[in-house]
Amino acid sequence: MKAVVLEKKNELTVREVPDPGHPGEGELRIAPRSVGICGSDVHYVEHGNIGKFVVTEPMVMGHEASGVVTEVGPGVEGFDVGDRVAMEPGIPDLTSKASRLGMYNVDPAVRFWATPPVDGCLCDAVVHPADFTYHLPDALSFGEGALLEPMAVAVHAVEKGGVKPGDTVAVSGAGTVGLLAACVALASGAGKVYISDVSVAKLEIAGQIPGLRPVNLQQEVMSEAISDETDGWGADVVIEASGAIGAYKDLWQVGAPGNTTVLVGMPAGEVPVDVVELQSRETQVQTVFRYANDYPRAIELAASGKVDLKPFITETFPMDDAVSVFQRAAEARPNDLKLQFALT
Amino acid sequence: MKAVVLEKKNELTVREVPDPGHPGEGELRIAPRSVGICGSDVHYVEHGNIGKFVVTEPMVMGHEASGVVTEVGPGVEGFDVGDRVAMEPGIPDLTSKASRLGMYNVDPAVRFWATPPVDGCLCDAVVHPADFTYHLPDALSFGEGALLEPMAVAVHAVEKGGVKPGDTVAVSGAGTVGLLAACVALASGAGKVYISDVSVAKLEIAGQIPGLRPVNLQQEVMSEAISDETDGWGADVVIEASGAIGAYKDLWQVGAPGNTTVLVGMPAGEVPVDVVELQSRETQVQTVFRYANDYPRAIELAASGKVDLKPFITETFPMDDAVSVFQRAAEARPNDLKLQFALT
Amino acid sequence: MKAVVLEKKNELTVREVPDPGHPGEGELRIAPRSVGICGSDVHYVEHGNIGKFVVTEPMVMGHEASGVVTEVGPGVEGFDVGDRVAMEPGIPDLTSKASRLGMYNVDPAVRFWATPPVDGCLCDAVVHPADFTYHLPDALSFGEGALLEPMAVAVHAVEKGGVKPGDTVAVSGAGTVGLLAACVALASGAGKVYISDVSVAKLEIAGQIPGLRPVNLQQEVMSEAISDETDGWGADVVIEASGAIGAYKDLWQVGAPGNTTVLVGMPAGEVPVDVVELQSRETQVQTVFRYANDYPRAIELAASGKVDLKPFITETFPMDDAVSVFQRAAEARPNDLKLQFALT
Amino acid sequence: MKAVVLEKKNELTVREVPDPGHPGEGELRIAPRSVGICGSDVHYVEHGNIGKFVVTEPMVMGHEASGVVTEVGPGVEGFDVGDRVAMEPGIPDLTSKASRLGMYNVDPAVRFWATPPVDGCLCDAVVHPADFTYHLPDALSFGEGALLEPMAVAVHAVEKGGVKPGDTVAVSGAGTVGLLAACVALASGAGKVYISDVSVAKLEIAGQIPGLRPVNLQQEVMSEAISDETDGWGADVVIEASGAIGAYKDLWQVGAPGNTTVLVGMPAGEVPVDVVELQSRETQVQTVFRYANDYPRAIELAASGKVDLKPFITETFPMDDAVSVFQRAAEARPNDLKLQFALT
Repeated sequence: MKAVVLEKKNELTVREVPDPGHPGEGELRIAPRSVGICGSDVHYVEHGNIGKFVVTEPMVMGHEASGVVTEVGPGVEGFDVGDRVAMEPGIPDLTSKASRLGMYNVDPAVRFWATPPVDGCLCDAVVHPADFTYHLPDALSFGEGALLEPMAVAVHAVEKGGVKPGDTVAVSGAGTVGLLAACVALASGAGKVYISDVSVAKLEIAGQIPGLRPVNLQQEVMSEAISDETDGWGADVVIEASGAIGAYKDLWQVGAPGNTTVLVGMPAGEVPVDVVELQSRETQVQTVFRYANDYPRAIELAASGKVDLKPFITETFPMDDAVSVFQRAAEARPNDLKLQFALT
Repeated sequence: MKAVVLEKKNELTVREVPDPGHPGEGELRIAPRSVGICGSDVHYVEHGNIGKFVVTEPMVMGHEASGVVTEVGPGVEGFDVGDRVAMEPGIPDLTSKASRLGMYNVDPAVRFWATPPVDGCLCDAVVHPADFTYHLPDALSFGEGALLEPMAVAVHAVEKGGVKPGDTVAVSGAGTVGLLAACVALASGAGKVYISDVSVAKLEIAGQIPGLRPVNLQQEVMSEAISDETDGWGADVVIEASGAIGAYKDLWQVGAPGNTTVLVGMPAGEVPVDVVELQSRETQVQTVFRYANDYPRAIELAASGKVDLKPFITETFPMDDAVSVFQRAAEARPNDLKLQFALT
Repeated sequence: MKAVVLEKKNELTVREVPDPGHPGEGELRIAPRSVGICGSDVHYVEHGNIGKFVVTEPMVMGHEASGVVTEVGPGVEGFDVGDRVAMEPGIPDLTSKASRLGMYNVDPAVRFWATPPVDGCLCDAVVHPADFTYHLPDALSFGEGALLEPMAVAVHAVEKGGVKPGDTVAVSGAGTVGLLAACVALASGAGKVYISDVSVAKLEIAGQIPGLRPVNLQQEVMSEAISDETDGWGADVVIEASGAIGAYKDLWQVGAPGNTTVLVGMPAGEVPVDVVELQSRETQVQTVFRYANDYPRAIELAASGKVDLKPFITETFPMDDAVSVFQRAAEARPNDLKLQFALT
Repeated sequence: MKAVVLEKKNELTVREVPDPGHPGEGELRIAPRSVGICGSDVHYVEHGNIGKFVVTEPMVMGHEASGVVTEVGPGVEGFDVGDRVAMEPGIPDLTSKASRLGMYNVDPAVRFWATPPVDGCLCDAVVHPADFTYHLPDALSFGEGALLEPMAVAVHAVEKGGVKPGDTVAVSGAGTVGLLAACVALASGAGKVYISDVSVAKLEIAGQIPGLRPVNLQQEVMSEAISDETDGWGADVVIEASGAIGAYKDLWQVGAPGNTTVLVGMPAGEVPVDVVELQSRETQVQTVFRYANDYPRAIELAASGKVDLKPFITETFPMDDAVSVFQRAAEARPNDLKLQFALT
């Protein structure tokens, strides 16, 4: 079958790879129909690693995906050939201590698509556990189905933030995850939702979403804007989704006394933190690693229209264009949110 | 000044009462403009008491109110004569143990409008602490301002339920508080929101609110309806807002494993509870007594349009009609949600 | 091999049953050394069922057990033949929704020893998943190891109560679970710990545990005793462990504003609840079904000496005496806490 | 009356200051009997400021205190002349938003002893609100009473950590607050409690407290020691109490998946944080600013003997020795925990 393969750092090809075969006990064979490109995919292409995960052998790319069931393994109930599905890309060891505590995402043994040495799903067929496969409602396209993966991250972040009805929420960074988090926060009862960026293009996208208040960091300081508009109180929940080290300079001033600040973006190096500033308002910091038990929530929000995923799909390409599409993704064009592949 | 006075059980009059005078330190003098009738008001009229609170002297009625500031006491900042405001009707002792823990609503020393021996606000003027008075946004009418009181109860209930994005929520009882709680749950990220009642009129009102799924208890069993539509899982959050003893028969079957069931309605007697049924799914039961720190949340949700309060106002009357209006309120007509007085 | 078998209601025998054979993948074969009798065991003997769980075929009794590993199945790491172990008696489906959320105890598919149709462990050999088997520290005897099962219930209850340092805790019922819960609460930072019962014998046992304040219900009312000694505040955490319907009469008066009341005991019928009483202090009710992730906590508390399990073992018997020992257990003698079998 | 006054940076005197006069409504006049020296006191002496709080006028020192009531103001109930008491040194505005939410410690308007421009209590007499004064049980000496202040910090930190029965806890820094936090953690159900320092003298003190496992940072790495002894899992709760910037190097490796890390120590500058390391285990970071509602908890733990405060009192001096005692405190001798003044 055909796949987009990272042969080694900076060398991407579209070529034949071995077929995954029939599904085993509890598994499904699925033909991916839509696969999105994530920042981590680009990072593997450019750097050949993310932290301790190093690409040492050719690896199939892709982990944001939806598709169609083509074969049902033994013991699987609730799925039929032809079913439209979205796939959760990380498979934990459910017997681990972390999994049994309900945090299967931080199980060190989790196997995650396109994270060395595990192959991804940007290919003609995958075999996947039915337990981590979800029915895609008719209301959602395959493209929206593939977007459920970053959407699950956003849902997890908002949950960790504990957004309550009427809360003021501040999101730092108007990329895909930041915008999704802002939308999920709005859908979760937040009153005012601020979202900051340095990119005018990103802020324009944010400005088109009803209820979001864009903050142009080239003209405003986020903490000051929010303080002014909340009688000096600050944001009840802060979500850092830019991953920019510079964003941390103002970050700890944004929150109100007792605020929760959620760190979703992954900075490329250490960030300097003024601990006393956090203590003075007893900021609670939550950190996010992917998601756990969030796919059903993401599906519910998207299928009910509470969060519209369509505007997040910037453009769709055939698999054969992979090399040039990954180059474009690496450029991080200001107007680009999600680039996806449509597979047939 | 003129006031609606409960002289004693079953004897309501509209008559002159002493003027409250000038506001003291930290207080405002306010002219109420809209005052709603609550079930507790009717209960005092009909029974002369609620539990240990007994009407032994004439008492001014009313605790759901908005108005206009007519005089600003010494030491008050942030308020001017002419400001449109909503008033939180319970004044706790902020030095009490409960208040210092953040639960000022369960401070036994709280003084609450129209709860013996404290006079209410269905009159020409009140003096009220500025700390428990809130600016009414332009987007909200005085009638909506008076509805913030039951709205605060609904917000408190949904917060206690810990509704998370995508949750399935079940509300028992489609009266004012039940419907408001259902709307707040929807605005707080709930996916499916069921609301049950025996009254066809109430269910029709519910059915007109987008996103609510009415459950006619004369035709369906709530727990079965939800089980069928959630693959047998059940509701993540259940809110009992009917206060009907009969509602408890099915209540404990409605929730999913680990669900939170919030009790808002106040049953007129003891309810039988099958504890083992609760234990089998480790149901967590939260109970609600009014609200604390919820007025700003209620205002934010209403002013932003996330919850539309206008449909809840059934009809508005002059103060002089008080006797007949309370009689109508006592009838609890199926089509009536909130009856309010407009004061000038 | 030999086993204690409940042939049907009221008919217990000690006889040969089929050997469980070799352990499969991930399993251990274990020779039980100590098995305790639980109230549920007695209930099955006397009634032939607990709720919907009905004894329709002969069933081996027993679920509180420790033992020695006699054979290690393929794929198991960390266990050797001869290891002293305690066994968690319930095996959930770890792929279920409840399990993935961290609540594997409320997974409806859980298989639990001596709960029809699952055989128990009061026999010469069992095969058990290594994932639900724990090393028994040298500091703990086999008898104490078997007591870890009710101890895990107590730990779970105290965790659900959210006991914080210095809290006042009230426990209703001085049976094994009530006393264990009181001891765990003490070890978890509780200040004053009250424990009530009608049995003088039980109260004497309680009185010998340093830090417990016994409340004789024939002479005192629990809520009044605690109110008097806490300036009218009440207990921060209340744990109902008697299962007596009569205990509910005073139960809701015991807690302070904002208290958490944990229901562990399983009443034999519906209990009448005054919901308004709960609401007036915003009592939060937590319910307990066995335990999840609590064996390691129970082992730590017992092995470190923070909770001494030895006084809970009233007497130990050979398996052959099972019929008479179950009769004695059914008598519920006031001086009896735990009766155990020692197996060789 | 006589007082220890910080005239300006580096200039401490013992001299006469104006008497505070009679207590007003709700106030007590108290003669301090024991006053401890805190690191913040020393910092004001040496630097003339802590952050934005600058000593611009002479200020009486001291905020850790116990004493005797000498006059009872109007409206005060529950206190008599001669009562032994401990005083909570921070007085918030109870009407503030933070206070009403139960977090009066982060109310920006809080007035705190010996924090410019508020005078402290190292003097012959103070006037203090009865609401923030607590009866000192007979079991506690005045010296132990003065230690309740840092003890309240430790209690607050352990509460924020959410220590549960059997948890593994790691404390960084064996100064007064670190050791107290370790003791409170032990008393709150923690199983293994590690405490690290570079000072052999401090580690020896720690080693004498039953249940603490000292970690000598000159010989061991905390994260490795704990990982080795917890099968690679890590600490469930981590408490940073050293305030040393260097301590942050290993800090984020110490916690288990889903751990809570509590920051109590106040670093003198920014600390570098590897956010991705936190995210990989979804560490939750809690920050501590003094305490709220913790004095009663601290008193309960100390008076019941669960935490013995006596070993924390290194030496006691007369007020007249203040200059030399503050010099010694500034030396931060390894064997010194708490230096206190005894007043008569």
